[in-house]
Amino acid sequence: MSLLSEKILSGDKRSIGRAISAVEDGRSDGTELLKDIFPHTGKALVIGITGAPGAGKSTLVDRLAAHYRGAGERVGIIAVDPSSPFTGGALLGDRIRMQNMATDPGVFIRSMASRGHLGGLARATVDAVAILDAAGYNKVIIETVGVGQDEVDVVKAADVTVVVLVPGMGDGVQAMKAGIMEIGDIFAINKADRDGVLRTERELEMLLSISERPDGWTPLIVKTVATEDSGTPALTAAIAQYQGFLDADRSRSTDRRATTAEHRIVELLRDRLLKAALSRVVNETDLGEMARAVADRRRDPYSVVDEIIAKMGISE
Amino acid sequence: MSLLSEKILSGDKRSIGRAISAVEDGRSDGTELLKDIFPHTGKALVIGITGAPGAGKSTLVDRLAAHYRGAGERVGIIAVDPSSPFTGGALLGDRIRMQNMATDPGVFIRSMASRGHLGGLARATVDAVAILDAAGYNKVIIETVGVGQDEVDVVKAADVTVVVLVPGMGDGVQAMKAGIMEIGDIFAINKADRDGVLRTERELEMLLSISERPDGWTPLIVKTVATEDSGTPALTAAIAQYQGFLDADRSRSTDRRATTAEHRIVELLRDRLLKAALSRVVNETDLGEMARAVADRRRDPYSVVDEIIAKMGISE
Repeated sequence: MSLLSEKILSGDKRSIGRAISAVEDGRSDGTELLKDIFPHTGKALVIGITGAPGAGKSTLVDRLAAHYRGAGERVGIIAVDPSSPFTGGALLGDRIRMQNMATDPGVFIRSMASRGHLGGLARATVDAVAILDAAGYNKVIIETVGVGQDEVDVVKAADVTVVVLVPGMGDGVQAMKAGIMEIGDIFAINKADRDGVLRTERELEMLLSISERPDGWTPLIVKTVATEDSGTPALTAAIAQYQGFLDADRSRSTDRRATTAEHRIVELLRDRLLKAALSRVVNETDLGEMARAVADRRRDPYSVVDEIIAKMGISE
Repeated sequence: MSLLSEKILSGDKRSIGRAISAVEDGRSDGTELLKDIFPHTGKALVIGITGAPGAGKSTLVDRLAAHYRGAGERVGIIAVDPSSPFTGGALLGDRIRMQNMATDPGVFIRSMASRGHLGGLARATVDAVAILDAAGYNKVIIETVGVGQDEVDVVKAADVTVVVLVPGMGDGVQAMKAGIMEIGDIFAINKADRDGVLRTERELEMLLSISERPDGWTPLIVKTVATEDSGTPALTAAIAQYQGFLDADRSRSTDRRATTAEHRIVELLRDRLLKAALSRVVNETDLGEMARAVADRRRDPYSVVDEIIAKMGISE
């Protein structure tokens, strides 16, 4: 076991930060480290918080974190932000956040850009969760904007998923279109002091009543006003209730974990295969030339890929 | 060239539908077909329309399509919908749409679920665009919910990208967080009869003024009320203006196309490599057993992937 791995297991914050950077960049020392720490993972409760921009996710996550801290737990937060060249990736929200919680030794906060991860954001996020888990954070919260396959994949890595809605932010059809309805174990209607909260609640209840989950769980609905810290205990109670539901049936939690693991293996494999192809078989110059040939319609991309696969000696 | 390929080039709608299904499913006959038709692509203007749920994208796309039809052009529409088990993938909006345009022989509409594409939504969408392009649709419109890496990748395949905003739907910081600001060549402020349109316009202008695009283009802002068909000519004019900008500088459009092609090759490669690994090296039973071992912490996923890579005989 490397020194870095040992320092992570002992909870050293600087080492945790370095390790997350290594896995974000897809470096090989990151992989070695993940092998070291993997047997020490699986202890944290991983909570996914998702919802449209403007739903108040960041504030809700801060309230949740403060609540868990008050109960003596250690909290890791991974905020997946779509990166923007306008801000250089550093978002206003995080800066505000840092002032409140960065000095607390029991809290670790990390922003992860949603772009530029070779092999996918999901892989990098799951690796970061593993590091925080191994480092002894009992609660790991992943916060993400909840639209798009990649974001959904991120949330799949969570043990429990909270979908944050706000009153009037969309009628039933829009909520369905956003594709986040089916991933919520718990729904938080945030900004519940606004007009329309009852209508949103009724619509949500109706939507949930016409669906039936294969696991038999009926998603809970909680009303919160994160800016006033109202509803936080109800939310943590709902999270605990779902955790109890998972734990009550051993085969259920085993199945869920096996599905997550399978997804994980496929993600890692995809990443590694592409990396192998791009580093050993096709260098940047080759790739650029191939791309120009395709752009000029001198070649088609399918034959180009045939050629690369053949060079790698893979039979299909 | 296969009979199906020939039928596509002649514009046969049923064949187009079958071909898109083949590429959606990642079938090998789809790949053969794409090789056949590839030399006949590159003629359509591909327009990406993106924005948060509820921004009115679908209606705006319908208006655009009707406008182009009026000018005698053939229009293909690919609506990328996050699929929902509640609706079985068939969305209300599409059903309404079908009634208006499905009978027009110059319009082809296709919904694509945003999930379940081995190798990614982006790959499947780009392939579908290629089919419509080869079949003679001059304008191909891709409509997508604009948050998340996958959705951004879809839009990257477009020649021109329109980001749809609505007044008051989010202040500057939220818009940036959504990560869609930097991909807009044109911004349409839809529902421009609502309060707050001037404020949204001013904020947008400010955001755009502090950024500078490497290509020197200043994104255009257009106000629309899609439900009343107001602003559609201004939007098509803006699209034509950007197209003119691209065409004016040959190296610019060549570079853009080469970047798109490179991205394309990498996506296809990723898809094919994973497929090869999963079909030849690891069967479903193996994968399930590996996943259970990882779930029980008997093995770590990184070593599992090492093993698969070694079995494939790939050097890294």
